[in-house]
Amino acid sequence: MTLPWEADLAGRLDRHTIHSAALEGNHLGDPADRPLWVYVPPGYDDDPGVRYPTVYVIQGYTGYLTMWANRTAYRQPFPEMADELFASRQAPPCIVVYVDAWTVYGGSQFVDSSGTGQYHTYLCEDVVGWVDTNYRTLAGPEHRGIHGKSSGGFGAMITPMLRPDLFGGFATHAGDSLYEYCYIPEFGKAVRNLRDYDGSIDRWWSDFRGRVAFTKPADENLLMMLGISACFSADPDGTPRLPFDPHNGVLDQDVWGRWLDWDPVRMVPRYADALRSQRAIWIDGGTSDEWFLEIGGQAFSDALGAIGITDVHFELFEGAHGRIDYRYPMALAYLAERLSAPSVR
Amino acid sequence: MTLPWEADLAGRLDRHTIHSAALEGNHLGDPADRPLWVYVPPGYDDDPGVRYPTVYVIQGYTGYLTMWANRTAYRQPFPEMADELFASRQAPPCIVVYVDAWTVYGGSQFVDSSGTGQYHTYLCEDVVGWVDTNYRTLAGPEHRGIHGKSSGGFGAMITPMLRPDLFGGFATHAGDSLYEYCYIPEFGKAVRNLRDYDGSIDRWWSDFRGRVAFTKPADENLLMMLGISACFSADPDGTPRLPFDPHNGVLDQDVWGRWLDWDPVRMVPRYADALRSQRAIWIDGGTSDEWFLEIGGQAFSDALGAIGITDVHFELFEGAHGRIDYRYPMALAYLAERLSAPSVR
Amino acid sequence: MTLPWEADLAGRLDRHTIHSAALEGNHLGDPADRPLWVYVPPGYDDDPGVRYPTVYVIQGYTGYLTMWANRTAYRQPFPEMADELFASRQAPPCIVVYVDAWTVYGGSQFVDSSGTGQYHTYLCEDVVGWVDTNYRTLAGPEHRGIHGKSSGGFGAMITPMLRPDLFGGFATHAGDSLYEYCYIPEFGKAVRNLRDYDGSIDRWWSDFRGRVAFTKPADENLLMMLGISACFSADPDGTPRLPFDPHNGVLDQDVWGRWLDWDPVRMVPRYADALRSQRAIWIDGGTSDEWFLEIGGQAFSDALGAIGITDVHFELFEGAHGRIDYRYPMALAYLAERLSAPSVR
Amino acid sequence: MTLPWEADLAGRLDRHTIHSAALEGNHLGDPADRPLWVYVPPGYDDDPGVRYPTVYVIQGYTGYLTMWANRTAYRQPFPEMADELFASRQAPPCIVVYVDAWTVYGGSQFVDSSGTGQYHTYLCEDVVGWVDTNYRTLAGPEHRGIHGKSSGGFGAMITPMLRPDLFGGFATHAGDSLYEYCYIPEFGKAVRNLRDYDGSIDRWWSDFRGRVAFTKPADENLLMMLGISACFSADPDGTPRLPFDPHNGVLDQDVWGRWLDWDPVRMVPRYADALRSQRAIWIDGGTSDEWFLEIGGQAFSDALGAIGITDVHFELFEGAHGRIDYRYPMALAYLAERLSAPSVR
Repeated sequence: MTLPWEADLAGRLDRHTIHSAALEGNHLGDPADRPLWVYVPPGYDDDPGVRYPTVYVIQGYTGYLTMWANRTAYRQPFPEMADELFASRQAPPCIVVYVDAWTVYGGSQFVDSSGTGQYHTYLCEDVVGWVDTNYRTLAGPEHRGIHGKSSGGFGAMITPMLRPDLFGGFATHAGDSLYEYCYIPEFGKAVRNLRDYDGSIDRWWSDFRGRVAFTKPADENLLMMLGISACFSADPDGTPRLPFDPHNGVLDQDVWGRWLDWDPVRMVPRYADALRSQRAIWIDGGTSDEWFLEIGGQAFSDALGAIGITDVHFELFEGAHGRIDYRYPMALAYLAERLSAPSVR
Repeated sequence: MTLPWEADLAGRLDRHTIHSAALEGNHLGDPADRPLWVYVPPGYDDDPGVRYPTVYVIQGYTGYLTMWANRTAYRQPFPEMADELFASRQAPPCIVVYVDAWTVYGGSQFVDSSGTGQYHTYLCEDVVGWVDTNYRTLAGPEHRGIHGKSSGGFGAMITPMLRPDLFGGFATHAGDSLYEYCYIPEFGKAVRNLRDYDGSIDRWWSDFRGRVAFTKPADENLLMMLGISACFSADPDGTPRLPFDPHNGVLDQDVWGRWLDWDPVRMVPRYADALRSQRAIWIDGGTSDEWFLEIGGQAFSDALGAIGITDVHFELFEGAHGRIDYRYPMALAYLAERLSAPSVR
Repeated sequence: MTLPWEADLAGRLDRHTIHSAALEGNHLGDPADRPLWVYVPPGYDDDPGVRYPTVYVIQGYTGYLTMWANRTAYRQPFPEMADELFASRQAPPCIVVYVDAWTVYGGSQFVDSSGTGQYHTYLCEDVVGWVDTNYRTLAGPEHRGIHGKSSGGFGAMITPMLRPDLFGGFATHAGDSLYEYCYIPEFGKAVRNLRDYDGSIDRWWSDFRGRVAFTKPADENLLMMLGISACFSADPDGTPRLPFDPHNGVLDQDVWGRWLDWDPVRMVPRYADALRSQRAIWIDGGTSDEWFLEIGGQAFSDALGAIGITDVHFELFEGAHGRIDYRYPMALAYLAERLSAPSVR
Repeated sequence: MTLPWEADLAGRLDRHTIHSAALEGNHLGDPADRPLWVYVPPGYDDDPGVRYPTVYVIQGYTGYLTMWANRTAYRQPFPEMADELFASRQAPPCIVVYVDAWTVYGGSQFVDSSGTGQYHTYLCEDVVGWVDTNYRTLAGPEHRGIHGKSSGGFGAMITPMLRPDLFGGFATHAGDSLYEYCYIPEFGKAVRNLRDYDGSIDRWWSDFRGRVAFTKPADENLLMMLGISACFSADPDGTPRLPFDPHNGVLDQDVWGRWLDWDPVRMVPRYADALRSQRAIWIDGGTSDEWFLEIGGQAFSDALGAIGITDVHFELFEGAHGRIDYRYPMALAYLAERLSAPSVR
């Protein structure tokens, strides 16, 4: 093992900032100029005639781009693990694109929303367009994949459903799904947490913004409640609507219905053709995921089976929601393999 | 404080066994002869002309009658606390009836079900009829109440809705309600627990019955799943139907709908008149109840408010789901007071 | 399975109250008249010439005698399980004596202490004497055993060490031992819990006595701290001394040393002969005991091995500290077998 | 608030690699060339005649230097917070030195040990010497401080005790101390964790090194056990000795005594003069620290008081062991202030 503080890449990681037309004037005032990391595998510069499949990598809730450089003991950051995969020829060469979709609420769920911004459009038009223009990609969907964990896993599931013209493969680790299971327990906690704020999430937000973050146990839960509401159930003017009554927990069926419309398990039948067009689907989750997301993965996998999609890598592994980054290279290798295959069209 | 092993009642606790026609031939083969404890307050035997209000006390899941005699350190069993209430004249005298509704699945939810038995009928016809025949009760609904915790709180909420001709008051501590909150997290755990049983709750049941109970962490959760399914969603032949797919957690909307039909919060509008006829309603719950049942209590209380019922004692107290028996005498005193008031008819 | 509310014993359980000279004038003012249950096996009354081995059964902290009658779902109280053992001839017949050693602090640890009372003397002189006088016991130590769990397991370990003239066998389930492991984490919690009481356990005790018990999370921990201090490290005038500074946790080596003198693991070499005289030793514990008591059991067992005692039943089982009453009959059968063997003297 | 991915320093962070003579040939084969970050405050380059106090910053267990660049949501890395402190003149300017003391066991405790290496000497001679040579420091101890959290807090406590000629101030957040409290519960867990490895920590280490780290729940506990043993109780040949019997938990008093010799609370009387020479002492900890380290901080503070040192900033704050990096700038400002004061000698 090399020492933890040493890491040289065999490939090259380019750090860019791109401008997103889609994010201009977004509701939260987050910047339209975004960092973008593009990794090219070893050999990319040797033969200017070769084009490569591309895998877009997106992050979980509260993630932002530079966190990919974070280091932990006895493990390597994903960009280094990914590089090693290509350097050692365990996976066919790919371009890997690290995308930032941070908002001041902690995330975007990679959807277009009046409450956050046009992050789906940003990803599909601005980022993909820029990458295809500036790198030697194989630009067809059969050579473009998307990968993520948690909220990033959610984004990886839904983006190809919405844009099969762009994406032909995806991998999700513990991706948000089966929303009764992952969200309703959070609603219960939120009702409790909001007791100190007279049931007003706005009051909590004001409090949160005026002090050191995450010094109160309620912070993580309420941030997620506010943020996901902004993504899935904002009013036309951008105001987030909670899917439950903050005083008594009763679900607002209209608002909750807007959330359920974004449940990947429920989306499968609506996007059956898009899903059938995928060349690579990887789904996994830890058997003790704190949000039951491995059950969501199972449900999503079974929903695919119900529309005839059985060529899926589905796997439960021992573990919870955290510390599962070691799973990412496995999925990346799977995507790289599938998306490198010759086009059949 | 008297010593913990000493307790003499000021009133009298009669231990009977009654035969229930309703429970004859019940699906689970549980006995139709049931123990019944009837407590009469001090003075009952002094004046044979006096009639008394009656409060029926029912138990939580896995409770059976003789558990009322269980002792814990520094506290008294409820029958002793109740006796003290009457002995000290903190509450007007009442007859208190302790009802057994155990089944081999751990409980009955006090409903009529092909999966367990006719426990609602047993309670309302056989038990109430027997008590009214054998004790000097004030037999009108305005003088008859029901009290319980957890599943017993559920029973206390629904029984007066179904039989306002019998019950004119009720008290619920952490009663089952707002079913998304209290049940769906259990479904998630059940899916996990059933992995060791190939997704078959029957296999678990066989295993459970063949060894010492509660030696596996899964036991409590799966017992509740099986039992509540038997109560709320049994087939006509008595087979319990789980409201979710045991492999992937997906809700079976038909079966789940049968459960939701029994959600007290959702039942309120359907039983508005019955509820409006109640003279006493007590609802409480601990602020950190493991099943979010205090939120359910709030939702139930708010649902009552929405149909114009505001004369309700609603209270959140610090505590969780266990060790809240000290709340029972408060509610009993409240019921006794309200149900002792002269009839207004 | 018989129904949970039904239980007839094949043997006979006699409920007595005895007077204890040793407990007269005890520091806490607890009664010197104590309940005592004596169970005689089936056949006891048939042949007045037969004498029986005796097993004394003692309880864990906060236990008092009548709690033996407590019922839980799907299990039988120990007196019923024990009866079944003898009724079914799975164990040779024994007299089983259920002893009460409650104090207002929740327990006595079965030692003589200025802080609680002479509970060791009470047990060994008053109780054993009374039983031998009133029942047809085999009165030699080779036919007398003692059994308990948790604090009762502790009592079962130390009593035969102190009085090998009386006891020739014992069984301990998760008995208090290896005190660094079971107690020091409690000290840490106590320091925190005492912050609300200016570091004064007396203030907590006043608070505790003036309200419903166990409504504050600190109660269990502080009760144990106070009670065990009263047992192991009371001043001559009965004042309990905590073994740590309540403000900063620093151990008081003198006081802590008094506790360690009562650590069964450390007592083994001092009482080697007494231990070598035992005909039956059963030690078990759950692998995830919240107080690491199965590790204490292992240490105790190894300490016995170090003095040449290897004929020991030692067992780790899957489980924690609670709900392990199903283990008791196994140990009782073991004791009954060993203590029924003909005397070899 | 600036966006999370943007950060420009007002001062300058120089990234060096230095060679340590002390670490040459260390037992674990860890490198003798170490990264070192030296931060100079705004204005450092403006006037070459000005010299600055210096604060050395060390890390907790499993920390290594480049982890200081890790980013988390809604917070800034400490080097950025520190820079802001100086940029905004909330603290007088200092040089801040970020030191790496990683070993393959996860840490060094900043002591000289045959089991890891000469990390105390490395820190005090090699690092301090190099910094004083290459930067314009005020080289007297009255202007040199040390700061850390957890194991780093421990290092910050002991290093000035050992080398008051070098260090005249320190700050510890939740530093290891009061070893019974922080370590003995870990020993209990370790005994359990080692059951899968026949009680051999070497077997665990082999397993750990041959797979992805931290995929087993036992990993963190056993890593700490092995590593701290290597730091505090290695044989002359470098073999770590556990302070307890891995089968039964019994403390090895000799080995445990070697650990206790490194307990800061116990070290205070031995190093009274060194401690009295400190110009700045900051001690804090979270009220629910998982290792009771705030109690250790209280005990350390009280031990200082017992030798007459009362000019100490001691504080308990609401929080646990994690996410307390927001406390670091407070302590740094305190050190900067005290260590900037004119020398009084």
